[in-house]
Amino acid sequence: MVIYLDNNATTKVDEEVLEEMLPYLKDEYANPSSMYEFSVKSSNAIADARNKMKDFVGAKSEKEIIFTSCGSESANTAIRGAVAHNKSKKHIITTKVEHPCVMNTYKSLEKQGYRIDYIGVNSNGELDIEELKEKITEDTALVSVMWANNETGVIFPVKEIGEIIKSKNPNTLFFVDAVQAAGKIEMNVKDSNIDLLGVSGHKFHAPKGIGALYVKSSVILPPLITGGHQERGYRAGTENVPYIVGMGKAAELAIDGLKYESTEVKRLRDKLETGILKTTYNSRLNSSITNRVPNTTNIGFEYIEGELILLHLSDLGICASSGSACTSGSLEPSHVLRAMGTPFTSLHGSIRFSLSRYTTEKEIDYVLEKLPRVIDDIIRISPYQEELEHLRKARG
Amino acid sequence: MVIYLDNNATTKVDEEVLEEMLPYLKDEYANPSSMYEFSVKSSNAIADARNKMKDFVGAKSEKEIIFTSCGSESANTAIRGAVAHNKSKKHIITTKVEHPCVMNTYKSLEKQGYRIDYIGVNSNGELDIEELKEKITEDTALVSVMWANNETGVIFPVKEIGEIIKSKNPNTLFFVDAVQAAGKIEMNVKDSNIDLLGVSGHKFHAPKGIGALYVKSSVILPPLITGGHQERGYRAGTENVPYIVGMGKAAELAIDGLKYESTEVKRLRDKLETGILKTTYNSRLNSSITNRVPNTTNIGFEYIEGELILLHLSDLGICASSGSACTSGSLEPSHVLRAMGTPFTSLHGSIRFSLSRYTTEKEIDYVLEKLPRVIDDIIRISPYQEELEHLRKARG
Repeated sequence: MVIYLDNNATTKVDEEVLEEMLPYLKDEYANPSSMYEFSVKSSNAIADARNKMKDFVGAKSEKEIIFTSCGSESANTAIRGAVAHNKSKKHIITTKVEHPCVMNTYKSLEKQGYRIDYIGVNSNGELDIEELKEKITEDTALVSVMWANNETGVIFPVKEIGEIIKSKNPNTLFFVDAVQAAGKIEMNVKDSNIDLLGVSGHKFHAPKGIGALYVKSSVILPPLITGGHQERGYRAGTENVPYIVGMGKAAELAIDGLKYESTEVKRLRDKLETGILKTTYNSRLNSSITNRVPNTTNIGFEYIEGELILLHLSDLGICASSGSACTSGSLEPSHVLRAMGTPFTSLHGSIRFSLSRYTTEKEIDYVLEKLPRVIDDIIRISPYQEELEHLRKARG
Repeated sequence: MVIYLDNNATTKVDEEVLEEMLPYLKDEYANPSSMYEFSVKSSNAIADARNKMKDFVGAKSEKEIIFTSCGSESANTAIRGAVAHNKSKKHIITTKVEHPCVMNTYKSLEKQGYRIDYIGVNSNGELDIEELKEKITEDTALVSVMWANNETGVIFPVKEIGEIIKSKNPNTLFFVDAVQAAGKIEMNVKDSNIDLLGVSGHKFHAPKGIGALYVKSSVILPPLITGGHQERGYRAGTENVPYIVGMGKAAELAIDGLKYESTEVKRLRDKLETGILKTTYNSRLNSSITNRVPNTTNIGFEYIEGELILLHLSDLGICASSGSACTSGSLEPSHVLRAMGTPFTSLHGSIRFSLSRYTTEKEIDYVLEKLPRVIDDIIRISPYQEELEHLRKARG
């Protein structure tokens, strides 16, 4: 039995998505760039998926959609492309809580001589908009923020940020990493002054290995992967027809499912969160209560070790995580929680639960039934017995 | 009905390959980087596929294999990585007949200030090894040649080239684009002084959207796509588990199928080639007869238009091509055939037929039955009636 509560790491491919992909993994295998009749169905399927992605991100034209191999490639193409586009400008603004794929790209640009400001967040994970506003100058090539945080689910006000950027410097490009927003909240790039926006299929029930990048029609980027003329010169490489078709279908399903996310998925997430906070006296919420995507909760268990909690949960068939899957295995505490000033006492014991439309009430009930015992067992071997006893009396 | 003779553009996914992939598109959807038990099967499957790819290219260790999203990404990672590795050296040697994904990457490096020598080929498409040898200097960062040409199938002697490179400058890196060799001839990187070698899954019956790069253990490259720690830091992005598994299986099947390629596929290719050359008086072979991969033939039809031949063939359900799918749609004559000094009279009428293990004798017979009529019909509307009549008398 698997109770999968790690949907911010990856998701199950929807059966309807797989269904639409299968013909292109079987008999419709033509290279869509070929000249013969046999390739028409493949190239039409890509056009159709591009149109669905256009609707998904709220772009004006399907020509603004580029297919990539993943969210990391989308981010690399956007960021490296944006600084090439604004090549005389040497300043970049981002946040302290970006995903590693974005953060590490900025670290490498720093080594190339770019000046980068990392904007902080408050204890709820909310961005310091005033600080961001003050930092924008004539020299700012790019402002880059995530739409929703992968660890806490906190949503950044991209529409407000877009207005601020363009009012201070219309030439500054605005890149939004929407990997964790996609499929959870509505996206509309054309209303938000967004120039570049990246998504990853496997976060909304398409397979791992496909992503998309929205590039506003006024923005010209050099390709990250040079070669053939595919994707109108923005991305070389024979098109991954099955996954492109799959992501298009997943986007269509995601649009239809937004209401379910904001009601039923949210209800189950809230039930899980409230239940845990009530039944385990050493737990605290690591984020803003209101301003979040509906599927995510991040809970700190004070004075105990998160990796140990995850191991116990894994034994019970429950999948959760202590941060980004891209950094798992490292014992460094989360850079997101540190930026929020999360107290040291719960920094190492923070667990992210992320639900999906497949999560059932029964699964949530099972976690709520099993988790208190897991936490109790780990508390019993904690070296911080006095502090825990103090907590128990104060909160319990 | 589809008679697919364009296997150098892409191939059908093998049913056994799809079979192995399907569990990872269904219930085994875990992120392989995650900590829980549920991810073990995915991460083991990647390890297993990496081992198969090691055997496929003949590497020493599976740690020398990096999974990428396509052949173009493999080439970009290798080439941009190699010049970063040898960053004080500003000279590169490649050939005039490389694939666009390689060629365009060199064009972009030229703009960045690299000095690039493009080595020529003779009329059979064979590389001028002496010229290559002379060009290698202390300043040569990289020598880059394809193993087999996508348009003509001509094989370059990579083992000999490797020896020449290392004897003249042991610090010069050697990159081999093996996209068209993979699955057609045996590869053995450790015997050939190869430092970097790229392959693309969809050329040997894995899906489009997966590739691999061999990086010799002594060579350290910066990643093209920065971000998470996947692929030991060489390539960020959540692993495309289904396709990685599929490519591993395809590699295993390809090793087993090499004998069939060199006997049965070759027999059918030779039958097709001989038949066409015999029955159409304006045809000539655009390559070396002996030194080729077993599945490819490139035939020039003098004084007529290749695009027109392809359209007529497409109407009959026959898929062939006039060059790389990555350049199709452009009416420029092939840079490969131009480098070979192919006469102007057949440059625009050259057709590549590329077979696979799925090609049947019946299909070849059908093409041999239908093609002469197609060529005759097009000859009838050619503006070069006098020249054609001259040819007919001389050859017919």
